[in-house]
Amino acid sequence: MKQKRRISILGSTGSIGVNTLEVIASHPDRFEVIALAAGANLERLLEQARRFRPLWVAVREREDARKLSQTLPAGVQVAFGTEGLKAIASHPKADFVVSAIVGASGLEPTLAALQAKKNVAIANKESLVMAGSLLTATAKKQGVSLLPIDSEHSAIFQLLEGQDRSALDKVILTASGGPFFRKTKGELNEVSLEEALHHPRWQMGRKITIDSATLTNKALEVIEGRWLFDLRPSQIEVVIHPQSIVHSLVAFRDGSMLAQMAVADMKIPIAYALSYPERISVKIPPLNLVEMGALEFYAPDVETFPILSLAYRALESKSSAAVVLNAANEVAVQAFLDRQIPFLEIYTLVREVFEAHRPVEAQSIEEMLSWDAWASEEAHRMLEVKNYKVDLGRSFRKAAHGSTSSP
Amino acid sequence: MKQKRRISILGSTGSIGVNTLEVIASHPDRFEVIALAAGANLERLLEQARRFRPLWVAVREREDARKLSQTLPAGVQVAFGTEGLKAIASHPKADFVVSAIVGASGLEPTLAALQAKKNVAIANKESLVMAGSLLTATAKKQGVSLLPIDSEHSAIFQLLEGQDRSALDKVILTASGGPFFRKTKGELNEVSLEEALHHPRWQMGRKITIDSATLTNKALEVIEGRWLFDLRPSQIEVVIHPQSIVHSLVAFRDGSMLAQMAVADMKIPIAYALSYPERISVKIPPLNLVEMGALEFYAPDVETFPILSLAYRALESKSSAAVVLNAANEVAVQAFLDRQIPFLEIYTLVREVFEAHRPVEAQSIEEMLSWDAWASEEAHRMLEVKNYKVDLGRSFRKAAHGSTSSP
Repeated sequence: MKQKRRISILGSTGSIGVNTLEVIASHPDRFEVIALAAGANLERLLEQARRFRPLWVAVREREDARKLSQTLPAGVQVAFGTEGLKAIASHPKADFVVSAIVGASGLEPTLAALQAKKNVAIANKESLVMAGSLLTATAKKQGVSLLPIDSEHSAIFQLLEGQDRSALDKVILTASGGPFFRKTKGELNEVSLEEALHHPRWQMGRKITIDSATLTNKALEVIEGRWLFDLRPSQIEVVIHPQSIVHSLVAFRDGSMLAQMAVADMKIPIAYALSYPERISVKIPPLNLVEMGALEFYAPDVETFPILSLAYRALESKSSAAVVLNAANEVAVQAFLDRQIPFLEIYTLVREVFEAHRPVEAQSIEEMLSWDAWASEEAHRMLEVKNYKVDLGRSFRKAAHGSTSSP
Repeated sequence: MKQKRRISILGSTGSIGVNTLEVIASHPDRFEVIALAAGANLERLLEQARRFRPLWVAVREREDARKLSQTLPAGVQVAFGTEGLKAIASHPKADFVVSAIVGASGLEPTLAALQAKKNVAIANKESLVMAGSLLTATAKKQGVSLLPIDSEHSAIFQLLEGQDRSALDKVILTASGGPFFRKTKGELNEVSLEEALHHPRWQMGRKITIDSATLTNKALEVIEGRWLFDLRPSQIEVVIHPQSIVHSLVAFRDGSMLAQMAVADMKIPIAYALSYPERISVKIPPLNLVEMGALEFYAPDVETFPILSLAYRALESKSSAAVVLNAANEVAVQAFLDRQIPFLEIYTLVREVFEAHRPVEAQSIEEMLSWDAWASEEAHRMLEVKNYKVDLGRSFRKAAHGSTSSP
């Protein structure tokens, strides 16, 4: 009998965290929960702690930690704040960390986990976009694995396993195209928040759903892929695949292309990361080739969805460029979610912050976080200058003096 | 610098042989031709011998060998007959044998190659169908590889490389459906030899093209797959994929399906077998996902194309059943190619011979070959009893006393 994998989960109450615990629950012989960290969803965290009996839990605020400590089962310790997160990430009893916090705050604990020689399954895109070079170098130095949870990168990881890496020609990331696939720029000018939040294939958080609608999600995945698989930017392609059945492909110099296919359920890539290099059973109805209908592939419309090009520019530039791209996008998406700006202004704002930045080679976490803060401030400043007047309905109107350039 | 792989080719003048030599010619740093065996195409063999300068060539007839010996380049020895083939297959200077003779005569030299501890790339379906158990056991015992060249089995072999075999759920062989995909039994009653020879996707020999039209090719591949990958028959599925882009798939218990895709060119699986576990470059235009159009998958129509069911019955039965299925089919296809029987009679004849046989566990090559001979004779006898009158045109007419039962 093998030893159980002892797992800490950063972000246990979010979509990835919940799915991770479902996978763990169906394989109690293989996995054991050591620690859980969440943000503010105390109720769900408490429920998880009661069910999985971790040694530690962590929350964001000291006051929440105090409240929790009175209701947690006996034997469950509680921590809080960044230090709490880092403690969970590097807990000596854990050998495997799932990094599933959304946003830049996932970076420090992810690095802490790798430095403490934990294998890390990573769903936190921002960490890889901001500091992919640092994270992959740290994993290599410490002799641990950095395993992708994104369905696309998991597909590539699965497909490269055991293959002749020196013969790899390129990787092809698939994108569903989001809710606005085939829309024109004119039509995009009119889309509402509700339409943007209505993703045709995946149920996800609001931020990533908007990123799918703008293709920014795929742009960030190009950057992630560059680091996870040590590729040249020109080796990464994006193709629109509206059915979201093929999660990505790899192409070799012999003309062979390998594809990973599955129903759109995050439990599959999560289970792969948790059980790698083995594959455990996952309780979902398997893909039925005959019933699924035809699989189609289209070239992305980079004229209408231009953020993809910025990602390649960021990769060809110095490392702060990707940090800035990501941070500006976070602000822009939030402004769109807050109904402050229209859909197309997301790209305009990201591009303007990106152009205003002179890239440098950021080496440390501190530098990266300071560029993240700079871009966030710059984006907020530009939003203010543009002085959007917000209507509550579908349409947006701009004040006189803002830039109106569309991409 | 690695040592060159030293290759003998059985069947060098056929389609697989010619493509093998093309792959070898584009990688002179990796491969060296040690010996070539052909049937009766002396002109092409001579040309190949002049170009690749093997140590030995072999032909079928003594007289041909004598003729050749006068024109071959200095230093090229010549052999003939079954003994010649076996000498080429086990030549001490070769470490790798490509087994690409069509028909049952490929069996003995393939076994001889494995017994002489050569790695074998196998395109000779009949060997695997007749004696898959014996060949795979021999390869295992001798510690050598038996590498598939069929595009479908090569796809599966590529996809299983480096994966968790214990988690394999099933393999899915794709079939183009052939020229008669979606035809009804009534329509099949009327099809001509010319229509049957017009395969929509692959350029192949006449026998295998007819086998594609009847789905027998896929039935034989199910049997091959059972032995090559040590599967239970229920783990092998067949799906119709008219585009012939996905060459096969594997499905794991975690819900992941992996697919191998490529343009329909035999040089790709040949190159993979020759260079395994590496991948070498192949000079063909790569697959373009965007330009290739939609990929479709359909359930096979086993009512109209019933030979597939016989293959599963053969696998669930004793080992002589597959030998008999294969041999009866060879006679039936030849009779169709000779315009002796109509298309649907191919299946009827195969089924009747199959039903007339009481399966036994054939252990040795001799037993297998004797069942092969028995089935061939039985099929010829039945053809005679049925007493087909042959028209030269599209339509067939039967004499009064033959069986007319259609499947």
